[in-house]
Amino acid sequence: MLIARTIEELRNTIASRSYKSLGFVPTMGALHEGHLSLIQKAFEQNDLVVVSVFVNPTQFGPNEDFDKYPRNYSRDIEILQTAGVHILFLPEIETMYPLGHEVEIRLPKISSILCGKFRPGHFDGVALILTKFFNILRPNKAYFGQKDYQQTIIVKKLVEQLFWEIEIVVCPTVRDEDGLAKSSRNQYLSAQERKNALILYQTLLWVASQVSVSRDLKFLAEQARQRLISAPSIKLEYFEILRARDLEPIDFLVENAIALGAIYVNNTRLIDNILLTVENLN
Amino acid sequence: MLIARTIEELRNTIASRSYKSLGFVPTMGALHEGHLSLIQKAFEQNDLVVVSVFVNPTQFGPNEDFDKYPRNYSRDIEILQTAGVHILFLPEIETMYPLGHEVEIRLPKISSILCGKFRPGHFDGVALILTKFFNILRPNKAYFGQKDYQQTIIVKKLVEQLFWEIEIVVCPTVRDEDGLAKSSRNQYLSAQERKNALILYQTLLWVASQVSVSRDLKFLAEQARQRLISAPSIKLEYFEILRARDLEPIDFLVENAIALGAIYVNNTRLIDNILLTVENLN
Repeated sequence: MLIARTIEELRNTIASRSYKSLGFVPTMGALHEGHLSLIQKAFEQNDLVVVSVFVNPTQFGPNEDFDKYPRNYSRDIEILQTAGVHILFLPEIETMYPLGHEVEIRLPKISSILCGKFRPGHFDGVALILTKFFNILRPNKAYFGQKDYQQTIIVKKLVEQLFWEIEIVVCPTVRDEDGLAKSSRNQYLSAQERKNALILYQTLLWVASQVSVSRDLKFLAEQARQRLISAPSIKLEYFEILRARDLEPIDFLVENAIALGAIYVNNTRLIDNILLTVENLN
Repeated sequence: MLIARTIEELRNTIASRSYKSLGFVPTMGALHEGHLSLIQKAFEQNDLVVVSVFVNPTQFGPNEDFDKYPRNYSRDIEILQTAGVHILFLPEIETMYPLGHEVEIRLPKISSILCGKFRPGHFDGVALILTKFFNILRPNKAYFGQKDYQQTIIVKKLVEQLFWEIEIVVCPTVRDEDGLAKSSRNQYLSAQERKNALILYQTLLWVASQVSVSRDLKFLAEQARQRLISAPSIKLEYFEILRARDLEPIDFLVENAIALGAIYVNNTRLIDNILLTVENLN
């Protein structure tokens, strides 16, 4: 595995390879099985796989966990090496954001709901760093986890509206045996907090089980919120059911919808979602 | 000359060519000798020359001249054909901005001064359409006129900060015999208005002649403003002297500076600028 730390190194390394398709997996490190499933998919669909590890400061708010976000680069390098990744891009902050940086990229409407409502600026930071990565790497495909569902919709819009020829591949959420969605932030949780955190996925499963009974999504979302509000030791941030393809409001399950929630367990913020498909209904 | 009207046509046409260097000249049509000088430079430096003609709605404010901006596509096509341009990209608005468009690209600091102060949103529109063009065309070089000086600085920042491998080439302002900078908007002017308009370039020349006498740029700018304010039948919008490389304030001519002005002649807004170099001083 070649480790590129500057943009020039990365460009030269990519230029020196002959490949048919470049698959790109952007990560913030602290790698887990969720990331590995993206990398595996990238290997299935491409002959050159590039992974970035970069804790992107512009997608953290001033009161968020940028400083304490888990970083373990030597472990990440080992994992990527073992996975057979061809190139790791591991830039410094100054490389991605040189002095005097001022460009901003925004999708103001879709970035103002759900996670974006509670993390103002978050998706602007995501859009900005991906724009940079896409321009440097020119990948054919890029890989994202369904756990960050709103992000996947925003990235698809970004690519479509700015006319990159990049296919955005969304891979299923990977879960622990107890159902908790894999997340780098899970390491913040104590054993008890982990148990409390499970209520989010349980509520999502409950919603999915109810759509065969009622297609009234507003009613189901409200029921789910009540469940979460009355659950012990967690704080509900949001729980919504929206149209899956664009996160627009939808009252009834007449096309695919997505149930999404964010909770706090102590100081740890966790998100999860589940797709509600019309195909399974009669 | 091949005329591409859709992104797919343009991409296929470019993909079918073998070339070493693609030179791109973005225009809003109503072509004049200024545009032709950019095209000529593009021919000198590239073996494939692509010109776009697109009156970009997002760079016009609600009270600006988008509707009446001069459009003469058949004349433009003839001019470009005669110039030997290889590919003309002539998209519809809906092609560049499909329904539901919401991405925004901003350089808020540098876009808030000079023209940007009086045309809020203008440079956001410029940055957005160029991002789209750059992603579709992947040019090696792109050509801009010095007349739109602030635009050239913004485009350079945009390219540098988003990591495109595109060289931005700035070509000298082309002038009529009387000195008036070529502009598509000059056709709005009556014979008398044209004469009145010349005061802007005359003032710029006066400033350039004064820097051998005084390097005090704040004083010179104020003198120039007084000249313009007392000139008949024009309205001064701004006149500033700033550091040439980044449009930051500069008090004395210790490095290259740029004098820039914008005036209204009746309803027609005209801009011009002149470079003040330290090399010519002793």
